[in-house]
Amino acid sequence: MRSLVIAPHPDDEVLGVGGTQLKRRAQGGEIGWILMTEMKTENGYTKEAVNHRRIEIENIESFMGFGFFREMKFATSSLDQVPLALLVVKLSKAIRDFEPQEIFLPHFSDVHSDHKVTFEAASSCVKWFRQPNINRIMSYETVSETGFGLNLNLDFQPNVFIDIEKYLERKVEALNIYISETDSHPFPRSDETLVALATLRGSSSGFKAAEAFQLLREYFE
Amino acid sequence: MRSLVIAPHPDDEVLGVGGTQLKRRAQGGEIGWILMTEMKTENGYTKEAVNHRRIEIENIESFMGFGFFREMKFATSSLDQVPLALLVVKLSKAIRDFEPQEIFLPHFSDVHSDHKVTFEAASSCVKWFRQPNINRIMSYETVSETGFGLNLNLDFQPNVFIDIEKYLERKVEALNIYISETDSHPFPRSDETLVALATLRGSSSGFKAAEAFQLLREYFE
Amino acid sequence: MRSLVIAPHPDDEVLGVGGTQLKRRAQGGEIGWILMTEMKTENGYTKEAVNHRRIEIENIESFMGFGFFREMKFATSSLDQVPLALLVVKLSKAIRDFEPQEIFLPHFSDVHSDHKVTFEAASSCVKWFRQPNINRIMSYETVSETGFGLNLNLDFQPNVFIDIEKYLERKVEALNIYISETDSHPFPRSDETLVALATLRGSSSGFKAAEAFQLLREYFE
Amino acid sequence: MRSLVIAPHPDDEVLGVGGTQLKRRAQGGEIGWILMTEMKTENGYTKEAVNHRRIEIENIESFMGFGFFREMKFATSSLDQVPLALLVVKLSKAIRDFEPQEIFLPHFSDVHSDHKVTFEAASSCVKWFRQPNINRIMSYETVSETGFGLNLNLDFQPNVFIDIEKYLERKVEALNIYISETDSHPFPRSDETLVALATLRGSSSGFKAAEAFQLLREYFE
Amino acid sequence: MRSLVIAPHPDDEVLGVGGTQLKRRAQGGEIGWILMTEMKTENGYTKEAVNHRRIEIENIESFMGFGFFREMKFATSSLDQVPLALLVVKLSKAIRDFEPQEIFLPHFSDVHSDHKVTFEAASSCVKWFRQPNINRIMSYETVSETGFGLNLNLDFQPNVFIDIEKYLERKVEALNIYISETDSHPFPRSDETLVALATLRGSSSGFKAAEAFQLLREYFE
Amino acid sequence: MRSLVIAPHPDDEVLGVGGTQLKRRAQGGEIGWILMTEMKTENGYTKEAVNHRRIEIENIESFMGFGFFREMKFATSSLDQVPLALLVVKLSKAIRDFEPQEIFLPHFSDVHSDHKVTFEAASSCVKWFRQPNINRIMSYETVSETGFGLNLNLDFQPNVFIDIEKYLERKVEALNIYISETDSHPFPRSDETLVALATLRGSSSGFKAAEAFQLLREYFE
Repeated sequence: MRSLVIAPHPDDEVLGVGGTQLKRRAQGGEIGWILMTEMKTENGYTKEAVNHRRIEIENIESFMGFGFFREMKFATSSLDQVPLALLVVKLSKAIRDFEPQEIFLPHFSDVHSDHKVTFEAASSCVKWFRQPNINRIMSYETVSETGFGLNLNLDFQPNVFIDIEKYLERKVEALNIYISETDSHPFPRSDETLVALATLRGSSSGFKAAEAFQLLREYFE
Repeated sequence: MRSLVIAPHPDDEVLGVGGTQLKRRAQGGEIGWILMTEMKTENGYTKEAVNHRRIEIENIESFMGFGFFREMKFATSSLDQVPLALLVVKLSKAIRDFEPQEIFLPHFSDVHSDHKVTFEAASSCVKWFRQPNINRIMSYETVSETGFGLNLNLDFQPNVFIDIEKYLERKVEALNIYISETDSHPFPRSDETLVALATLRGSSSGFKAAEAFQLLREYFE
Repeated sequence: MRSLVIAPHPDDEVLGVGGTQLKRRAQGGEIGWILMTEMKTENGYTKEAVNHRRIEIENIESFMGFGFFREMKFATSSLDQVPLALLVVKLSKAIRDFEPQEIFLPHFSDVHSDHKVTFEAASSCVKWFRQPNINRIMSYETVSETGFGLNLNLDFQPNVFIDIEKYLERKVEALNIYISETDSHPFPRSDETLVALATLRGSSSGFKAAEAFQLLREYFE
Repeated sequence: MRSLVIAPHPDDEVLGVGGTQLKRRAQGGEIGWILMTEMKTENGYTKEAVNHRRIEIENIESFMGFGFFREMKFATSSLDQVPLALLVVKLSKAIRDFEPQEIFLPHFSDVHSDHKVTFEAASSCVKWFRQPNINRIMSYETVSETGFGLNLNLDFQPNVFIDIEKYLERKVEALNIYISETDSHPFPRSDETLVALATLRGSSSGFKAAEAFQLLREYFE
Repeated sequence: MRSLVIAPHPDDEVLGVGGTQLKRRAQGGEIGWILMTEMKTENGYTKEAVNHRRIEIENIESFMGFGFFREMKFATSSLDQVPLALLVVKLSKAIRDFEPQEIFLPHFSDVHSDHKVTFEAASSCVKWFRQPNINRIMSYETVSETGFGLNLNLDFQPNVFIDIEKYLERKVEALNIYISETDSHPFPRSDETLVALATLRGSSSGFKAAEAFQLLREYFE
Repeated sequence: MRSLVIAPHPDDEVLGVGGTQLKRRAQGGEIGWILMTEMKTENGYTKEAVNHRRIEIENIESFMGFGFFREMKFATSSLDQVPLALLVVKLSKAIRDFEPQEIFLPHFSDVHSDHKVTFEAASSCVKWFRQPNINRIMSYETVSETGFGLNLNLDFQPNVFIDIEKYLERKVEALNIYISETDSHPFPRSDETLVALATLRGSSSGFKAAEAFQLLREYFE
């Protein structure tokens, strides 16, 4: 099975789907990662920060064992400035290049506009007559974004739970590769928060640790 | 795989899940049916109607090939008069007797109170720590009930689509076993409506004909 | 009665409101069409495609018998790149030029961004103190867009049903004028899907065939 | 046109639809009133209160000019104790006896259980194949109930506005017939609140005074 | 400040509001507890279980330091069988006897019918003109019920977060008084789940540990 | 207490929060105002209009007694053209400069795109780990925008009510400073509408006059 995550920023793929992707690979599946944005010096990031992020990304790619990795290289926090038509064309091509059966999107309620735009663009790409290979589309939750939207009518409603007991430890290791993005609890991107979330999602589904998703669409032949 | 449908009235199991259940059986699965209510002469139905319904039920049971069939035998249109605790106890036992992996419920927005109560009772039965065998819970749509609720905030939102192209013809045959419940289009329980619905759900999912469901909960080990 | 449809792309007016508009005209009403976008060679469409589309539009205009037709001529799939203030100004003027009593908008849950933007812009135009002539505002459904949004909280909730039995055949003819946009079922823009949808909406409302809408606002003097 | 309001308690018909019903009658329509409950001495009301209420009801019936009035005579605050099947049978018969084209229901979010049950029962009665004469179904708002529900997901969403400028004064007079149910503002059932609501609904729709409704279903031949 | 929790069953008050109530008391407030149901031998519970529960309740009352405790003594899992009018009368009286400023209710999406009915009954009691002393009404979350409802449109949407860092340890101790209701994780009523939930709610609000609530109504003089 | 309102246009701060801000100041609090847009001659406003608006703003600033006032000076009706990242940076800085405890945002359902964009930008600014001083975030209602959105799933759900009886008169005076924005009822920005709204919100909460808000987030240490 080919399983694809679309991440607005580096770390979303770990926070949202890290355990499940590690599991897919352990079970013989192929995992893919589309990364929408990157830090750019022209947006005010230091060269050092950009280089450091570059290394983190390479380390994650290898740590997670992604068989497919595509960077869209749009500027961080600026997806709202990119024509949607361009996002759709580029994203469609990348998805077709990997031909996933399963695809994970950020959630439409996430507070960061890069998450919202990624969701919108991906929604337009994944119609069945555009990508007939996809048979399951889900949204993942990102601890620092998904609980932070203020539009209460649009919240994450988890209904798919995947056992990640055996992979939680490595998921936390993966998060720690992103040194600059993590901090100590109560900061959301922290070991404690990640473990607490997995523990809670597990108690909703009968597992010691779980990742939760919201099903958007599934097709069974 | 053991697949179970809970039907408030005879015909809901065909209207909502008929194609999928026929397919499950054709693929070697075992299918089950829990029927919540029955016509009773003490509620004003004629003895003839009751007998006729009895025969229809037997014919459906055999036509569909149910390997498990359990009748709750509560009076039609009176589930709101049954203590929920009693419904939960009896339904829990029946579910445990079949041990399904997959379970189909009526939708919470259905206009008939028997549908709503069945949904409520089943919701209480299927917690993972009560029925650890179940790994997928879905709601089905019933043409004459699901589109007819007037609480617009609570509508059926299909997100799981199952190809029933090879089974649509037999689904329509099954519906026609319920002579007294069917009529000609635009009446909802009619051949034309059933085919139109399958055609439309198919166009949403890339199949010639499909049944659509709303995922309520899914667990992956 | 003057009845107006606002269509993001050519074919939305037929798919969503074709039967009702034909009926309005047959009953002596005047029907209008505002078309938001057009194919442009500078966006990569061939000159041939552009010309062909031009002819289709002229044929539809005459087939449907529109008494008012206004093209906004924004580039297809690029409404998100147009300043909303400009859209509102141009759309407001066009609406005032026709002075409709009834107006049909695409639905806010449609997956295509041109549909969403059209809805947003139109929402700002139709306040009662801006367009006092309008007394009913409805959203229509577009088979290839309305069921394809992935934000499950925002789905089309039909509550107005209009009998189009006598006009369904001509609605299908109209669709077939858009040769390049149609295909065979299960593709959504197909004869079979259109007929299935009309049949299903009819079974919800007691008609042999119907179009369904979601009421947004209605004023009765 | 025959226009029917279903009121859980005496005064709901005035609070929710008083202006519109007065207008319907002034325009030559026939107006009807189904009253679900009554005070009963066996439920602890004094004989005096019961008698007084009886007189109020008679006065309202004559003041409003109802051409059809049917009392269901269930005990106040006890509709949840009545089998829904019984409510549906009795309500269906009453509706058929009047044959309305237009019907007004309390809103499903109203906090009083009598309102919720009335809505549920009426929902089951008004399917098009049960009551083919009805072509518009709306919910009205009741100042003391509609804004007081605590389930925030289910709130009244007004989208139909009817001009009652000429009838507001008489609507307030009608309310004052129910002496025991009214009090001074900020109590909701007060002249000031009623006028404020009509003023506000008017500012949403371009009228000096309006009543607002939520459309549930409408059919156009 | 007088702070009141309404609990369908013993343990809901600890699971949902234990930390906050301990904090209120530590800060000099008075805390109250209304318990809706009790185990009864006539419903099949052994005399031993009933006695054991009695002792647990007394221990909790003293451990938490409730200054007000009222038992409604309806049978467990049978609130749907009690006339709502009776619940409203009894609950109204109890609330008036304590005169709380702040009141905590179970959430309307909780899967257990006792929770739903308690919410409905309480909703009817707390209108401002019935209980003018109340100025804040919130819903709490119960780990074993709040995440387990299957009606996805009605989920718990936390928007009030209260720091319970200093009280979490004692909250867990309180839970462990209910020996028969707890088990080891992933069972929801477990130390690990409770701590994980508090950790997660804390990461949403900047505290080491928090309880989360959904605000239903608040009044500021 | 420092209380901040973010207003897309001049007058939103009065319409939505005028009474409450006057009250905060009277009670010794400090009140702040961030104004997102301004009329510009380059957008077609006459120099006279721009000057007149300038004077209105100064008069309001002094009438209301704002201790903090910051203008973002983006062009009216064009916030959708500003990169969100820029809005977030500028807004974050302004909020930090005032360090409010309480913050009022426009509502996400408001029909004007400037309101929606302001809400989106503010949502990204107010995460607890970005602005740890804020402990309450609310949305206010603007009579001419909040009831005029056509996306029925996203409506204003008031749950916080603040008594403004003593301040209503001065709130109306403040509105009248904006001569060019007001008109006579039924126009929404009118004395009558403002008083009607306050009267109605009061009847929902037990006050002679109230302003209503929707709580988005609250933190209690």
